[in-house]
Amino acid sequence: MIEQRRAVVVGTGLIGGSIGMALRERGWYVTGRDRDEARAARALELGALDAVRDDPTAELTVIATPVGSVAAEAAAALAHGGIVTDVGSTKSGVVAAVDHPRFVGGHPMAGSELEGVDGADSNLFAGAVWVLTPVEHTDAAAHALVRSIVTAMGAAVVELSPARHDELVAMVSHVPHLTAVTLMDLAGEQAEEHAALLRLAAGGFRDMTRIASGHPGIWPDICVDNRDAIVEVLTRFEAAIRRMRDTVAAEDRVGLLAILERARTARTNLPLRGAPLEELVEVRVPVPDRPGVIADITTLASELGVNIAHLDVADAFEGAAGVMSLTIEAKAVDLLRGGLVARGYRPSTRALS
Amino acid sequence: MIEQRRAVVVGTGLIGGSIGMALRERGWYVTGRDRDEARAARALELGALDAVRDDPTAELTVIATPVGSVAAEAAAALAHGGIVTDVGSTKSGVVAAVDHPRFVGGHPMAGSELEGVDGADSNLFAGAVWVLTPVEHTDAAAHALVRSIVTAMGAAVVELSPARHDELVAMVSHVPHLTAVTLMDLAGEQAEEHAALLRLAAGGFRDMTRIASGHPGIWPDICVDNRDAIVEVLTRFEAAIRRMRDTVAAEDRVGLLAILERARTARTNLPLRGAPLEELVEVRVPVPDRPGVIADITTLASELGVNIAHLDVADAFEGAAGVMSLTIEAKAVDLLRGGLVARGYRPSTRALS
Repeated sequence: MIEQRRAVVVGTGLIGGSIGMALRERGWYVTGRDRDEARAARALELGALDAVRDDPTAELTVIATPVGSVAAEAAAALAHGGIVTDVGSTKSGVVAAVDHPRFVGGHPMAGSELEGVDGADSNLFAGAVWVLTPVEHTDAAAHALVRSIVTAMGAAVVELSPARHDELVAMVSHVPHLTAVTLMDLAGEQAEEHAALLRLAAGGFRDMTRIASGHPGIWPDICVDNRDAIVEVLTRFEAAIRRMRDTVAAEDRVGLLAILERARTARTNLPLRGAPLEELVEVRVPVPDRPGVIADITTLASELGVNIAHLDVADAFEGAAGVMSLTIEAKAVDLLRGGLVARGYRPSTRALS
Repeated sequence: MIEQRRAVVVGTGLIGGSIGMALRERGWYVTGRDRDEARAARALELGALDAVRDDPTAELTVIATPVGSVAAEAAAALAHGGIVTDVGSTKSGVVAAVDHPRFVGGHPMAGSELEGVDGADSNLFAGAVWVLTPVEHTDAAAHALVRSIVTAMGAAVVELSPARHDELVAMVSHVPHLTAVTLMDLAGEQAEEHAALLRLAAGGFRDMTRIASGHPGIWPDICVDNRDAIVEVLTRFEAAIRRMRDTVAAEDRVGLLAILERARTARTNLPLRGAPLEELVEVRVPVPDRPGVIADITTLASELGVNIAHLDVADAFEGAAGVMSLTIEAKAVDLLRGGLVARGYRPSTRALS
């Protein structure tokens, strides 16, 4: 009889609950706990857990608590022998604080406003991007395990350094959220004075401010934790709004149209979630036995915007030099080959279709 | 035989086409024209018009061209004896330029990204807010006709002075649009450098930047026409973004949470489109025979956020003192009565249910 694989979920809210459900669907035995015992009981009731308890000998522990408690929970879990990952929305602080080969930082960009375990869904991550932030001393087996689980849940993995992750989420998540809040607050201020105002709000305004109706509780932690990146992007955004105001004030039609056209093109080119893969090609890369080589290659692929459909690094786990296999879209082959050669690798390619 | 009522639609894009369809469904004979002859032909083909031609003796002319050409088209139509309205997204400039008792400024807040006549739909305005901007010398019969047609199309009428309309749409429409464009442009700038960035964009970012994918063509006109209000709101928005940045930089959790909670409440209280009316009450207001009295009362109701389900002003049209009847939600009665008494009216109320 094959022993059932075992995982622990710490923090059984929307994300932790959904991970529990997805793992159980894939045959894992999942235990878990939450600081709020009623929430853990509810997760059990909803089928996100097999039992409410810790499990020091589990193969995998997923820390799905608010960012502020990830480091402490991760340290506790790493005291045992398993692999640990988290789902926190900022990464530099946590990865530096935990600083352990068996810890792989993660951040699913599930983009849901729901927050409680009652919204949990084993399919929550299908088509979503899930960032992993392996670093040079991250254990290759730990990295590969987390990667395979995330991929099995239907998410597309993007690998970034923790600092780069934090800069990018400040731009596409944190600052947009704070912008929606600022805009809604400004309109709300006026609304007290003029009750007619908010009745004029058509679809665009509703779309733009929707995220401002989310639960505020997690934001102070996120803003403190990712302070520097957020402040930097807000500074640039403030300058861009000032330039926009000056363009309008000057009645500069040509300048205005140029910005509008540029933004339209960028918005139109926004990658679709879960876009189907085109023709696939396997890129094989002989890799030396040195720490960080897998993180180096996967992070390079993500930086280049190359989507990895399948990754096989089994040979490299043996400790000797091996071959890493990346399955990617045909149209991205030259881009990845260029990057790999520039970093000193010697890739070869093979069409799969 | 009762003669068919006749209307002209000038400018047969999305809005003009939809108005043509809605009027035809309600038994009107609708002719129309467009600077782009192919577009007028397409409107005819789609059933938005009965014929492509002008009609100087029509009862109603709807100017649905870009803001920049409304004043000239309205003046041409007013040279004949009919009533004229427009659908331009700014009002002060047009209303001042046209300056005629038979012109009633209008602005349907249909909130659609579509722009061509191919997206036209007779049901486009159901549940949408449609602003009218009658002024003191607006003819009561012209005002009442436009109001009844707009209401018949399923829109909720909000009456505002032209200047107030322009301030409010700068806040809920123009500045949000320019904000979405600025945010998308900033992210797009970074995306050239880091291809991974836009793959991280989850639902919130997509929601916030959706309107940036709209056609840029109308925006230079809008920004020039509503320049002062837009510049003023952008200036306040820039200051609010700076305060947000300072709050994050100071790690001021309490201040941050206060803004987030305030915005959340404001967003949650955003009136729903087409919300059903509650228990109804009729408010009857004896009105003197002086110009602007209807505009004064309906604008007051809109300013107070009081939704008028039905308006009857027939007696007042005779030129003598009459009674104006407003059917409104029971919960709003005290608010409207307070406002009316403050303006020197003597309202009485009567429950309808």
